[in-house]
Amino acid sequence: MAQSPYKWFFEQTTPVEGHCHAIDRTVFELRTRYQHMEIMETASYGKVLVLDGRIQSSVADDFIYHETLVHPVMMVHPRPESVLVIGGGEGATLREILRYPTVRRAVMVDIDQEVVEACRTHLPELHQGAFDDPRVVVRHEDARGWLAATSERFDVAIVDLTEPLEAGPACLLFTREFYELLASRLTERGALTLQAGMTKLGELEFYASMGKTLAPVFPVIAPYQVSIPCFGTPWGFIVAGKGEDPRQVPGEEIDRRVRDRVRGELRFYDGQAHQHLFSLPKFLRAALLSMGRAITDAEPLIVH
Amino acid sequence: MAQSPYKWFFEQTTPVEGHCHAIDRTVFELRTRYQHMEIMETASYGKVLVLDGRIQSSVADDFIYHETLVHPVMMVHPRPESVLVIGGGEGATLREILRYPTVRRAVMVDIDQEVVEACRTHLPELHQGAFDDPRVVVRHEDARGWLAATSERFDVAIVDLTEPLEAGPACLLFTREFYELLASRLTERGALTLQAGMTKLGELEFYASMGKTLAPVFPVIAPYQVSIPCFGTPWGFIVAGKGEDPRQVPGEEIDRRVRDRVRGELRFYDGQAHQHLFSLPKFLRAALLSMGRAITDAEPLIVH
Amino acid sequence: MAQSPYKWFFEQTTPVEGHCHAIDRTVFELRTRYQHMEIMETASYGKVLVLDGRIQSSVADDFIYHETLVHPVMMVHPRPESVLVIGGGEGATLREILRYPTVRRAVMVDIDQEVVEACRTHLPELHQGAFDDPRVVVRHEDARGWLAATSERFDVAIVDLTEPLEAGPACLLFTREFYELLASRLTERGALTLQAGMTKLGELEFYASMGKTLAPVFPVIAPYQVSIPCFGTPWGFIVAGKGEDPRQVPGEEIDRRVRDRVRGELRFYDGQAHQHLFSLPKFLRAALLSMGRAITDAEPLIVH
Amino acid sequence: MAQSPYKWFFEQTTPVEGHCHAIDRTVFELRTRYQHMEIMETASYGKVLVLDGRIQSSVADDFIYHETLVHPVMMVHPRPESVLVIGGGEGATLREILRYPTVRRAVMVDIDQEVVEACRTHLPELHQGAFDDPRVVVRHEDARGWLAATSERFDVAIVDLTEPLEAGPACLLFTREFYELLASRLTERGALTLQAGMTKLGELEFYASMGKTLAPVFPVIAPYQVSIPCFGTPWGFIVAGKGEDPRQVPGEEIDRRVRDRVRGELRFYDGQAHQHLFSLPKFLRAALLSMGRAITDAEPLIVH
Repeated sequence: MAQSPYKWFFEQTTPVEGHCHAIDRTVFELRTRYQHMEIMETASYGKVLVLDGRIQSSVADDFIYHETLVHPVMMVHPRPESVLVIGGGEGATLREILRYPTVRRAVMVDIDQEVVEACRTHLPELHQGAFDDPRVVVRHEDARGWLAATSERFDVAIVDLTEPLEAGPACLLFTREFYELLASRLTERGALTLQAGMTKLGELEFYASMGKTLAPVFPVIAPYQVSIPCFGTPWGFIVAGKGEDPRQVPGEEIDRRVRDRVRGELRFYDGQAHQHLFSLPKFLRAALLSMGRAITDAEPLIVH
Repeated sequence: MAQSPYKWFFEQTTPVEGHCHAIDRTVFELRTRYQHMEIMETASYGKVLVLDGRIQSSVADDFIYHETLVHPVMMVHPRPESVLVIGGGEGATLREILRYPTVRRAVMVDIDQEVVEACRTHLPELHQGAFDDPRVVVRHEDARGWLAATSERFDVAIVDLTEPLEAGPACLLFTREFYELLASRLTERGALTLQAGMTKLGELEFYASMGKTLAPVFPVIAPYQVSIPCFGTPWGFIVAGKGEDPRQVPGEEIDRRVRDRVRGELRFYDGQAHQHLFSLPKFLRAALLSMGRAITDAEPLIVH
Repeated sequence: MAQSPYKWFFEQTTPVEGHCHAIDRTVFELRTRYQHMEIMETASYGKVLVLDGRIQSSVADDFIYHETLVHPVMMVHPRPESVLVIGGGEGATLREILRYPTVRRAVMVDIDQEVVEACRTHLPELHQGAFDDPRVVVRHEDARGWLAATSERFDVAIVDLTEPLEAGPACLLFTREFYELLASRLTERGALTLQAGMTKLGELEFYASMGKTLAPVFPVIAPYQVSIPCFGTPWGFIVAGKGEDPRQVPGEEIDRRVRDRVRGELRFYDGQAHQHLFSLPKFLRAALLSMGRAITDAEPLIVH
Repeated sequence: MAQSPYKWFFEQTTPVEGHCHAIDRTVFELRTRYQHMEIMETASYGKVLVLDGRIQSSVADDFIYHETLVHPVMMVHPRPESVLVIGGGEGATLREILRYPTVRRAVMVDIDQEVVEACRTHLPELHQGAFDDPRVVVRHEDARGWLAATSERFDVAIVDLTEPLEAGPACLLFTREFYELLASRLTERGALTLQAGMTKLGELEFYASMGKTLAPVFPVIAPYQVSIPCFGTPWGFIVAGKGEDPRQVPGEEIDRRVRDRVRGELRFYDGQAHQHLFSLPKFLRAALLSMGRAITDAEPLIVH
């Protein structure tokens, strides 16, 4: 009855490179109005969420991704009370935000209700009950439209969207105009972070472009990156804000703030991890300077 | 005449996970006395060296691997004059060593002459003429036997060997006894570095064990890691030495030393990259403490 | 929302060759007491049944496999009333048998009740209600033990088992002793057929051995083969009997018998298809003569 | 030093199905003016020729393909003296033609001189010296232009071209007008054969269309097929002629003609194999009737 793995998930990170996982079983599949979603159990990382063929999170290493996404930006606001999440369907972003007792309201705007509900049912390891927290409000609508209409202001915003692979409304969540709108919805010392694509050598165009897109909008632009094992590639993020620059905060101060402000035990992030994230190799800093272009509504960027 | 890639190199990083590259062409193949070697041209990373099915280096991102391997340990010796390389067939390790004008002698001991000669011929992008430098001596013999017999002493040693996949003499290059021997061949303030396997979540046993193996032998043990794009996984290294701890050297001091001591322009390494390398995420530090065991001649470790 | 297939089923037909299918979704998975079973929806062939990683049937081309398995042997018995199926979990073998109004009793002995029940629920396209036919009796026990104990006699027996991949009781369903026992349970003009492995060049050992195993037991041995698209390889079968040799029956006579004896419309099999099946290429006839060995309880054969 | 295969050739037979081979080594690669060619050594079939990612022949099973391509059409001409090959770069088609002592002239028109020369050098197992036979003439030009200009007439023509995957001149070698031209260059009892694509269930459009394209041009249209192991799929051919119908020739007569007319020992083809080839399963005959359309210069057919 012995057998080798015979079902594999192939993620083409580029047309000529890929990363693959043996699939133990498929937990859930759905073609929603917006995308194809699937939750598979992989042999190496447990359950993973896959949207349109691209892996989003795994139960085994989601703590790397989501602690990296959430905590650096939370650290640079002195007292985040209201937080906005754009995208973030799994609820793991909310989970990390809710660790902050200062947070009184967390609004998540994710257009795809079916994905959110399926994650709520099938990926409790990721959200860990975050959706039931009374501080959380979830809206299923286009984030740009919602932002334009709202009068609410946020201390922190976290943008966790997949990069646009084709022309369409998703492109309009990656432009200077969108970030200008989002900046106007932040409080005085507000800051945002976003996932900003691979930082793999040779695939840095999108990351650098996001930097150039945010630069005219925010006084502080702090790119950072981390290797996500289940992606098979390092991944980039950018904190953009009106207040403190995360690169100016020493590791010991991060450790102190984590101890004072965050409930529960983190597994990835602390002062040393913070320095790891924001200390970029030379070639990556060079690429951020020399590559990319500002993305606008008139000239959107489509990945591949 | 359009076509998708139809030849792929699959590297199983574990039995249930893999990374793959489209192959443009095969440059050279050989079954040597010790291993199978192959140089392929990949679409994403140009030429790559593959030994026994495992990717060693690519022309596109070798600078990440080899600058990471060589410079941190070179930085902690005040004036490295003699350097020993164990393994390192491509010659790229030598290439980085030879950037130091203080170096007067670099001895490379790599058992597999056929691999070294093939790299010399087919991978000039990697060695860049290092083998022709008059300071270089190359020996093709078992490193442990050679070390036992030599009376030479080295300021720095760099161990760049593939992990043992089966029982055999290669196992004896990863034990406490081997590192005791190597320590005895270092000068008073000498230090060594080694590649120490994946630092991918779930595959940390070997890395942690190397740490525990070196700990009784050297006063300074400084683990570090970097993401190697063409490997599809982050990779671990350890500096072990008798002198300065690389983690104690501030980034600005690294920048100064690089400027003063290294010829030519580095692409990956500088003060900020140094901080990136040695600032380990929390879970990785925890794994180094809690996992692994000392490896000895009597109880060698075989990967998978 | 466009996407290429990212989930693939890889069937290694040999360690160095494989056939693969994009997976649309997984319908059902179960590790039974005896094997791992899975029903997947493939893009090319619809639902497929996979046991221990090996494809058994697809909804799209099962008619090729099951008409080929069942009808040639049914044709050479003048009036099959009782039929035994060994294995045949999907129920498609029963489905074809039940097309014969002469059949009054069809006994299926398949050890794995869980597989049979799952196919009954999830693969109605294959069995098409065969399990509900009052002529059918299904037993879940070891076929060899059941045969030894039964006093029943059958006009036709159909052996549809997967080849043994490891030592164990399944091996004892592929030996001369087993076929002697089975022969003793056939009526005077009885015949059997069996699936007998790939007929792909270079993989003919098992097929030839089955021929040599049956030869001393039955006066008529008629090997035949067909290409099964979803397997990616041609597949072999053998009729072994005490009566008519199927190779002696002209195509027109087959057409007449099909018209007279079989209810409903066949899609693969008729007189011309019969000639296709039993007319073997020269190299295959040569292999049947020169390769293989008789398989016995004392010297069982394990595939790969 | 043990290792699993890590280099694989993936042939996507359709966008959702594929067949793959472990690659031992690459023998030769070239981007010619017309296509990409490669000769690889596979573990299962030895050397294979691959054009634009599609396998053409393997050393292990080329005898199945080329005996099937050549002998049926040669059998229906009473005394073939002049034979035309269109395509057929490996020279294996010539090899089989030259077995007939009656043949006095074999003209091969293959536009791609680089492919022919590489096969001549690197695939002697396939051509077996055919190019050196004094009866052979090889022309490297567009077959349609050459046919239009020639005044030569042939007893047999063999069309061995890959199906057009994109618009372009290759399309014009698969149209009614092309076959009208070719028919006009055949002698009174002349016949042709062609490879006509997969006969895998679900991929029969091209095969059926070639039948409908040839039907108005020739009195005899005899489709046949065979399973080619290294392709992972059965493959279709069509004899179209002005004389004898191959389906009318009994197996014993084929055996006699092979004995009388063919030099050397065939491995696949004889009377029984002939019956295998031309006895088509019911569904395939049905598809040939119900599917496809006549292909014309004005409405060419592009595969996928």
